[in-house]
Amino acid sequence: MRPWGAKSYNTPVSIPRVYWPLGEPHSGGVEFTGDEAHRLRHVLRMAPGDAVSLFDGRGHEWTGQVGALTRQGVAVVNLQPITPIPEARASITLAVGVLKGDQMDAVVRDATMLGAAVIQPLRTAHVTVPPKAWQSGAARERWQRVAIASATQCRRAVVPEVLPVADLSACLRASAALRLMCVEPAVGAPAADWRPAAAPPESVLVLVGPEGGWAATEVEQAVAVGARLLSLGPRTLRAETAPVVALTLVSSAWGW
Amino acid sequence: MRPWGAKSYNTPVSIPRVYWPLGEPHSGGVEFTGDEAHRLRHVLRMAPGDAVSLFDGRGHEWTGQVGALTRQGVAVVNLQPITPIPEARASITLAVGVLKGDQMDAVVRDATMLGAAVIQPLRTAHVTVPPKAWQSGAARERWQRVAIASATQCRRAVVPEVLPVADLSACLRASAALRLMCVEPAVGAPAADWRPAAAPPESVLVLVGPEGGWAATEVEQAVAVGARLLSLGPRTLRAETAPVVALTLVSSAWGW
Repeated sequence: MRPWGAKSYNTPVSIPRVYWPLGEPHSGGVEFTGDEAHRLRHVLRMAPGDAVSLFDGRGHEWTGQVGALTRQGVAVVNLQPITPIPEARASITLAVGVLKGDQMDAVVRDATMLGAAVIQPLRTAHVTVPPKAWQSGAARERWQRVAIASATQCRRAVVPEVLPVADLSACLRASAALRLMCVEPAVGAPAADWRPAAAPPESVLVLVGPEGGWAATEVEQAVAVGARLLSLGPRTLRAETAPVVALTLVSSAWGW
Repeated sequence: MRPWGAKSYNTPVSIPRVYWPLGEPHSGGVEFTGDEAHRLRHVLRMAPGDAVSLFDGRGHEWTGQVGALTRQGVAVVNLQPITPIPEARASITLAVGVLKGDQMDAVVRDATMLGAAVIQPLRTAHVTVPPKAWQSGAARERWQRVAIASATQCRRAVVPEVLPVADLSACLRASAALRLMCVEPAVGAPAADWRPAAAPPESVLVLVGPEGGWAATEVEQAVAVGARLLSLGPRTLRAETAPVVALTLVSSAWGW
């Protein structure tokens, strides 16, 4: 859904964006080669003089124009820093039980779009995806590429870092000002009654189970280290939708 | 994500559910034929004595056991009414610009899972899906089937009604205690600052634009009839994710 007004922050939505992870671009301009040059030239069909924006994935963004199109690449010149879209007021880590390929890609895409600063794939009791699907670095590289593509699309200047798959216990040991474990209501379960404090905490860890949900011992383990329980409503959510619902609740809690 | 405790309301998540739209089942039991019989027997591999639950799509649910498996069908006997999962505290209509096939199916599926009571597909200025894709009754029938399948999965006892495609102006004329139009922030646009009142309104109309967003005149038209503007955050959301974010905000506003 595009903004309905004329401009969104400093970058009109009609201006294509390109990921430029190499730091402050040279004042004289930069040159894209390889995949990004292909995208600019053949997918976006950009011509010299067309407006384009660059973002570094760490919160910086610049606008410029397409310069020379050579056999080697596409130049972007006249770069000027612009104000990027603001980040969420709390730094949010989404820790989520590993899902199968398409579902996990959707979770990474949507978590990027909903403002997660870090994505922590989890190995939990009920993860059913075989380890060979996520143990190599290839899965993490793919998820990181998905995050870059999603940041490009949603006009975010920050690309969340996708961490290597970790155990729940290691994840719970990492520091976080607020830990929220997402649960659905169940008879006899501890009440999920987290309400946001007036001011955002510095960091929030949002824990979402895999397709099979949490084992009871996992909930106990999280509660033992101070995690609060967050209800995602009375209905059984699809595994790849639960993170969208959770991140909406947390990101909007302090006015986005 | 399944509940992590033993039971969810009266229906443990392990009990398969079947849609039974024919009203109060006969006390002696009911017999499924056709697709539902096939699903019970060959997909769910149910045997006599297995627990099953029936829901009528209008808020009623019963548990029973599989009885006789005959060539004609599958009987379900010993039916007892149970307490269904509660509905949202406000009756929510999701009105959404028509999206292409897969995306619209996902929106209907997710809106069902997030508690919409009615789904109103909209023809708006920026809808790009050709009329032949949605003008016949076939599209509406497919969306209604998607809603039934989603209610079955998410354990909801109510199936939202999918209305025929309507114009935005007709939709705005229909009665609703609260109208919310979802917008993304844009420089110079009226501020989106809806905050929920303490008590839920009787009915809420949630308006979400199609892939191309709202035309400025459409926002003016909604504001003119008293619609409030609801922000879905600073980033550009995918068209099929915006309804999930909007329904999460509205459904959770009064404690789900």
